[in-house]
Amino acid sequence: MAMFFNIFSLKNLLVLSLALNVSLVLRVLYEKDFEVNNGRSVDNQKDALTTTDSVLSEARATQRARPSMPSSSSTVDGDGGDTIINLDHGDPTMYERFWQQTGDKSTIVIPGWQSMSYFSDAGSLCWFLEPEFAKEIIRLHKTVGNAVTEDRYIVVGTGSTQLYQAVLYALSPQDAVEPRSVVSAAPYYSSYPLITDCLKSGLYKWAGDARSFNKEGPFIELVTSPNNPDGYVRQSVVNKSGGILVHDLAYYWPQYTPIASAANHDIMLFTVSKSTGHAGMRIGWALVKDVEVAKKMVKFVELNTIGVSKDSQLRAAKVLQVVIHSCQYPTSLGSLFDFAAHLMEERWKLLRAAVRQSGLFTLPEFSPGSCSFLNRSFAPQPAFAWLKCQEPMEDCEGFLRSNNIITRSGKHFGVSPQFVRISMLDRDENFHIFVERLSTIHLRQSVQVEETDGGVE
Amino acid sequence: MAMFFNIFSLKNLLVLSLALNVSLVLRVLYEKDFEVNNGRSVDNQKDALTTTDSVLSEARATQRARPSMPSSSSTVDGDGGDTIINLDHGDPTMYERFWQQTGDKSTIVIPGWQSMSYFSDAGSLCWFLEPEFAKEIIRLHKTVGNAVTEDRYIVVGTGSTQLYQAVLYALSPQDAVEPRSVVSAAPYYSSYPLITDCLKSGLYKWAGDARSFNKEGPFIELVTSPNNPDGYVRQSVVNKSGGILVHDLAYYWPQYTPIASAANHDIMLFTVSKSTGHAGMRIGWALVKDVEVAKKMVKFVELNTIGVSKDSQLRAAKVLQVVIHSCQYPTSLGSLFDFAAHLMEERWKLLRAAVRQSGLFTLPEFSPGSCSFLNRSFAPQPAFAWLKCQEPMEDCEGFLRSNNIITRSGKHFGVSPQFVRISMLDRDENFHIFVERLSTIHLRQSVQVEETDGGVE
Repeated sequence: MAMFFNIFSLKNLLVLSLALNVSLVLRVLYEKDFEVNNGRSVDNQKDALTTTDSVLSEARATQRARPSMPSSSSTVDGDGGDTIINLDHGDPTMYERFWQQTGDKSTIVIPGWQSMSYFSDAGSLCWFLEPEFAKEIIRLHKTVGNAVTEDRYIVVGTGSTQLYQAVLYALSPQDAVEPRSVVSAAPYYSSYPLITDCLKSGLYKWAGDARSFNKEGPFIELVTSPNNPDGYVRQSVVNKSGGILVHDLAYYWPQYTPIASAANHDIMLFTVSKSTGHAGMRIGWALVKDVEVAKKMVKFVELNTIGVSKDSQLRAAKVLQVVIHSCQYPTSLGSLFDFAAHLMEERWKLLRAAVRQSGLFTLPEFSPGSCSFLNRSFAPQPAFAWLKCQEPMEDCEGFLRSNNIITRSGKHFGVSPQFVRISMLDRDENFHIFVERLSTIHLRQSVQVEETDGGVE
Repeated sequence: MAMFFNIFSLKNLLVLSLALNVSLVLRVLYEKDFEVNNGRSVDNQKDALTTTDSVLSEARATQRARPSMPSSSSTVDGDGGDTIINLDHGDPTMYERFWQQTGDKSTIVIPGWQSMSYFSDAGSLCWFLEPEFAKEIIRLHKTVGNAVTEDRYIVVGTGSTQLYQAVLYALSPQDAVEPRSVVSAAPYYSSYPLITDCLKSGLYKWAGDARSFNKEGPFIELVTSPNNPDGYVRQSVVNKSGGILVHDLAYYWPQYTPIASAANHDIMLFTVSKSTGHAGMRIGWALVKDVEVAKKMVKFVELNTIGVSKDSQLRAAKVLQVVIHSCQYPTSLGSLFDFAAHLMEERWKLLRAAVRQSGLFTLPEFSPGSCSFLNRSFAPQPAFAWLKCQEPMEDCEGFLRSNNIITRSGKHFGVSPQFVRISMLDRDENFHIFVERLSTIHLRQSVQVEETDGGVE
């Protein structure tokens, strides 16, 4: 007991008690949503306050019961923040809950003798595109109204990552004297420079921030809208001729941003990972105006992987069918977009409350816009939080890591390490542990400082 | 009638009748196998001799009933060879028959909420490898005895094509002064040079035939065994130090070649396309000894496609399970390997008979070897026929194309256009039309020459 009082002074206990209060206030805010989750999480949380071991075994049991591993995230907390919460990737596991309630409707059955050939539609331009999937892509865009599909070729890819490379290959002449410059306005998607330069291609080369690009000659400008990492709606920023625009519209869906109008660009990239949440499928698609560009993209996918998994395309077709049906005949959770938009709205409210509470960070502010699909006006609620640490903290990623929250540093996005990107798409329990921990970081830090002052090893 | 006699002289008719006889002899040879197919093909063939239109509509009906389009091949013939038979690709559709008889045992069911995360096994070196699939890979190699799996890392890829690029990336230092040379003994797989050089990488560069390679410095030698296109068992041919060997063992399965012993190389590539016939899955795997090489390969797949379709991996696991079970408890068709080995043996007999009949071509000859898996001795019966046109024909691909048989010219494999590569893995009906047509080409050519002589336009 003497030891106890030695470590925890009354002042320390007061700070700890304050932290608990903040946590309880936050809990009241999201209790309703938490209960909806799986009818078990609230109990888990309560247990977590009393004993760590039981929660650990509960979490392990949950892992076993789950169809997929809980990715790189952890589901355990309430032990004073010892457990690592990994929000580095945009792993869209928050969508599992929607798909669970669709039941058999979204189940795919593939007999052993089906889809054995390399070819899906031998006579068509994209010979490895499953016609059924192509049909659902068009129906989905028509339903949501987020992209023009008329007079476009569809090219399917092993995720939009492969299509990004297919686009670079298609837009860079084989006989050019020097590699074509590839630019995007900072903060840009951290994978763009890595993918572009990983093979030291003689066809194309990463040339950094589009805003400071001033090299002569042709170039490729990537316009990611809404932007990864910061969520803002974007347009081309390079103010000179000779550029070809590539629009990465992975996040142009009504759960993340108001759908202002149907995008009508020459090259548009989409992915199921961020629209339906099926990242494990590795399926993306491009809508391409120019037939020669589309042909070269097909050629790239042929050289790179001889087409795209038919199984995943068939599953994607089924999943899009269910999404479209959910828009026409919404269930108790609403359409997929209602479900996800509602969840994103709640999560952003919680995140902003936690950030206010902590006082150590800032978040982007967005203006509301009218959404033609959801028939209401709302502010963007992006798939990533682009968090900035307040001065004097320089290394936001390192600071959060010391609090067992794994994020991606701004330096990978071409900007200052004061920023970090945080996934907003993880499972409910992880997200809630994250906001809870974030809200108390200031207090925790104080406790830690006090503890250190108190001479604890 | 005057017109009829004008076109067809008695001599012409004699030649035509001879051609029909050869065709009927061949039919007797494969009638049994043909009947097994689906109990309908023989009738199709008979119809084909009387009316083209009915066969065309039959073929279209077959297409509709089929799970997948009949790839780039056609199923119609008996109309004098007007229909195009495409054997350019190694599309392994001959395996459909095996998988049809496995029924529900090989069916995969994936609910909508399953496998949504990017991650399959977050903690493991290859974080996107489904553990269930990894387990079946090891069991399969142990069952067949064709590769050592102990002390190896498994890296999964979107087909072995992606793994080939992953290997090049892994073996080429990022800071090298010049690109690493990549060689393979001609005739080499036609895609190697195209894939290696398509992005003009600064890391590696195609350097052609390994036999004539004499550049100083480190290099990568691809050893494809049995070889694509010619089917011979191979070993390294470059006789100097500084080389790293990559073994492409896509065809090292008992249906193609006797399994002499378990391959025990540093880097070995495999694919389901040529082992089970599931090309549409786009799934390959590498067995890699060195942890650093394995790590870099994983990095490449991460950059290239952020992992590999989980759906296809789960389906591949199921399919391998059924293959292993078929070895332990063979059905009426035997194990998958019995089925395919039997089919390849029959096909090679038919092909050799047709080649003898035509007198225009030659084929590789193979010595028999003892197979530890099938417990008998047999000569290789490769997945491709490496056909050589006799003098004075220079352009074998062009010659066969003029007979509506699409093959791949030897020039793409680094050798003379007197050679062509022909897939032996197409569906039964296409293969039989092909050998029938090949056997009568000499006669057809004579007819054509006669006809031309007779003044037909």
